[in-house]
Amino acid sequence: MKRILISELKEEFINEKVLIKGWVHRIRILKKVTFILVRDRSGVVQCVIDNESINNVELKNESVIEIVGKVVSSQNKISNIEVVVENINILSKVKDELPIEVNNGLDIKLETMLDNRVLSLRKENINFILKVKAILAQGFREFLIRDGFTEIFTPKIVKDGAEGGTNLFNLKYFENTAYLAQSPQFYKQMMVAAGYEKVFEIAHVYRAEEHDTRRHLNEYVSMDLEMGFIEDEKDIMRIENQLLIYLMEKLRLEMSEEEEKFEFHIPKVPETIPYITFKEAKQILKKHYNKINSEEDLDPQCEELIYEYAKTYLDSEFIFITDYPKSKRPMYAMPKGENLTHSFDLIFRGMEITTGGQRIHDYDMLVNNFINKGLDPSNFGSYTEIFKYGVPPHGGLAIGLERLTCQILGLKNVREASAFPRDRQRLLP
Amino acid sequence: MKRILISELKEEFINEKVLIKGWVHRIRILKKVTFILVRDRSGVVQCVIDNESINNVELKNESVIEIVGKVVSSQNKISNIEVVVENINILSKVKDELPIEVNNGLDIKLETMLDNRVLSLRKENINFILKVKAILAQGFREFLIRDGFTEIFTPKIVKDGAEGGTNLFNLKYFENTAYLAQSPQFYKQMMVAAGYEKVFEIAHVYRAEEHDTRRHLNEYVSMDLEMGFIEDEKDIMRIENQLLIYLMEKLRLEMSEEEEKFEFHIPKVPETIPYITFKEAKQILKKHYNKINSEEDLDPQCEELIYEYAKTYLDSEFIFITDYPKSKRPMYAMPKGENLTHSFDLIFRGMEITTGGQRIHDYDMLVNNFINKGLDPSNFGSYTEIFKYGVPPHGGLAIGLERLTCQILGLKNVREASAFPRDRQRLLP
Repeated sequence: MKRILISELKEEFINEKVLIKGWVHRIRILKKVTFILVRDRSGVVQCVIDNESINNVELKNESVIEIVGKVVSSQNKISNIEVVVENINILSKVKDELPIEVNNGLDIKLETMLDNRVLSLRKENINFILKVKAILAQGFREFLIRDGFTEIFTPKIVKDGAEGGTNLFNLKYFENTAYLAQSPQFYKQMMVAAGYEKVFEIAHVYRAEEHDTRRHLNEYVSMDLEMGFIEDEKDIMRIENQLLIYLMEKLRLEMSEEEEKFEFHIPKVPETIPYITFKEAKQILKKHYNKINSEEDLDPQCEELIYEYAKTYLDSEFIFITDYPKSKRPMYAMPKGENLTHSFDLIFRGMEITTGGQRIHDYDMLVNNFINKGLDPSNFGSYTEIFKYGVPPHGGLAIGLERLTCQILGLKNVREASAFPRDRQRLLP
Repeated sequence: MKRILISELKEEFINEKVLIKGWVHRIRILKKVTFILVRDRSGVVQCVIDNESINNVELKNESVIEIVGKVVSSQNKISNIEVVVENINILSKVKDELPIEVNNGLDIKLETMLDNRVLSLRKENINFILKVKAILAQGFREFLIRDGFTEIFTPKIVKDGAEGGTNLFNLKYFENTAYLAQSPQFYKQMMVAAGYEKVFEIAHVYRAEEHDTRRHLNEYVSMDLEMGFIEDEKDIMRIENQLLIYLMEKLRLEMSEEEEKFEFHIPKVPETIPYITFKEAKQILKKHYNKINSEEDLDPQCEELIYEYAKTYLDSEFIFITDYPKSKRPMYAMPKGENLTHSFDLIFRGMEITTGGQRIHDYDMLVNNFINKGLDPSNFGSYTEIFKYGVPPHGGLAIGLERLTCQILGLKNVREASAFPRDRQRLLP
């Protein structure tokens, strides 16, 4: 007998015998019968069994069971059918008191959620988060593959390949010291130059950052793309715009039930996401919110306010900020005039979810930029070297997958969008 | 004017003006005209220009250029059209002598290939390898998503999460010591137990192995799947069988031209891949090849011979070996009788490309197995703990993506299937 998924159990199965498998979601013992809610990856169904038949079955919440039974019509909270149990078999026992309850929809504290990750992920109001994440990742790939991009796999153990700075994790690599890649930046540029022209990668990146905020992870999934033969960063912004339209459309198709049930809101992506320059952003912050940012960069509160502005005045939950000053961008950012760069960030619902821009493709300009930033180009030889041999004008971007998920779903903390997050304190589970 | 890809330049464009962009593949100067072969990611086309018009253009092989010109009919080696140049513009110069030639199809030594990776990947007989790899990865996902699997992203910085042994890379994680994940094994099991039931991940894994052979990489891409509610390992073998059929079909659809041009052979996957037990494999080796393996395991030569046997006697390039002894399998492998396990390997053209099997889902059995293997279960607490709370019978497998690519294409060394391989000696580029 073949197992049937619970979501497929509809009225047309009434009077048929079925085999279902799953977890015991809830047990309710009445005088003569016991109701067992059974949960599998697709849904929950009510099963009913005589108390006599179940006397010797040691059932607990979260036991794994299989049930053969007959489908009958019913009026219960979950659906209009139920399963009358003919045979029940325990596949895996529960040996201990559950540290958290799975079968209620109540919120739990972040630490409790992450300490008991396997159990907290069984809660339906948490489980769907990582399904949304998976759909976003696959949507990213689908869109880009159709547009002629090639998927790449670049090393995470690197030597020259790190952009540098203080947020590198060190690694002993046999006799050498190596680092964990902060991004695939240099390698994706190299793959454009290797003739693939348009490339993407979805992979972990690593930041040894000390701060412990709701928006930071020390290991996260970066969705990167890089493409050659562009005019400037506007080409990259355009492709991100189209990509986001595709992603939200896909989510709408595959997650509409969840959207209603868990009350999140899949955003509408404008045909053309509005953009303002970094300078304009600072003026807007001052004029509309009387906020003067002491630093050159925009802090999280500024990002919130710029989002407020975009929503209120531009009718968009997304807004690009362009033309960042050189001092705020890395050595490979293509300069624009004396002080600016061909660069952009994308703010979505008050959080930066993308950094991108055009890169330098001229060898001399690149080497000089390294020097101007106080870096020794010879420490990056295997990267700079390639610019001697014909590299097309190019640019790209990176989207933080957990941040995107977090912002779409309105999660309080980006850690909720990671199955097993790594942060300043957490290496387990 | 919009750029057109070279592969799209067919007869219907004759007499039209087009814009193409790419690399100078080859230059041939005749008395009055110069022929320039231009290469982009899609192909090569011949362009022709008056010597007078090109006098002041500093062209070299691998310069990046854009050309506006008229398409005319032609009879050249590459196609039945060529482009008469009206305007040529250099987008990126070549500043140095090329360390290797790009425009010949000659083989180069592995070290030379990897030292000059960006240039060697421009060679068309090398470039396509990583396209095949990308297609295999996306095919793996497509097949599994359609079959109800959820993509997962599990941590690569781990503490409890490593299987242990001597091949771990150590990492300083703030005040702690951590490891790079050798596989997502524990975490993919945990995600099955978290209610996703059927999960997959394509991600890097890390092995600090000292040996330096044609089949080993210290960082490689593992295609993992894990699924719950199985009967035994045969369910996993069945899904791999179907998956391989899908992958080879997809390759045939997308890579038939390359298959002919570069003379590889996409294998036929039998409807049911034959399987023999480990014990039978040893008997076959002795009987047919007079080979007695001193070790319990099969060495690379044994794998070659078993492949010979499968091809000759079973008409298959794939063969499963099942029922490995407990001593050869990790602590989580489901025992079969006293001494064996519910496990398998898949040999393809003489190389193991998959290890898989059923896992233990009973807490007591698992803890005892740790102890029997001489391991302290308390060092793996965040993993073993979950088996107290209802884990369905489950199993899974891992396919090495570079090995699979290598074997399909008949490459000499698995490093050729990695853009930037990491091995005992190599951290650059």
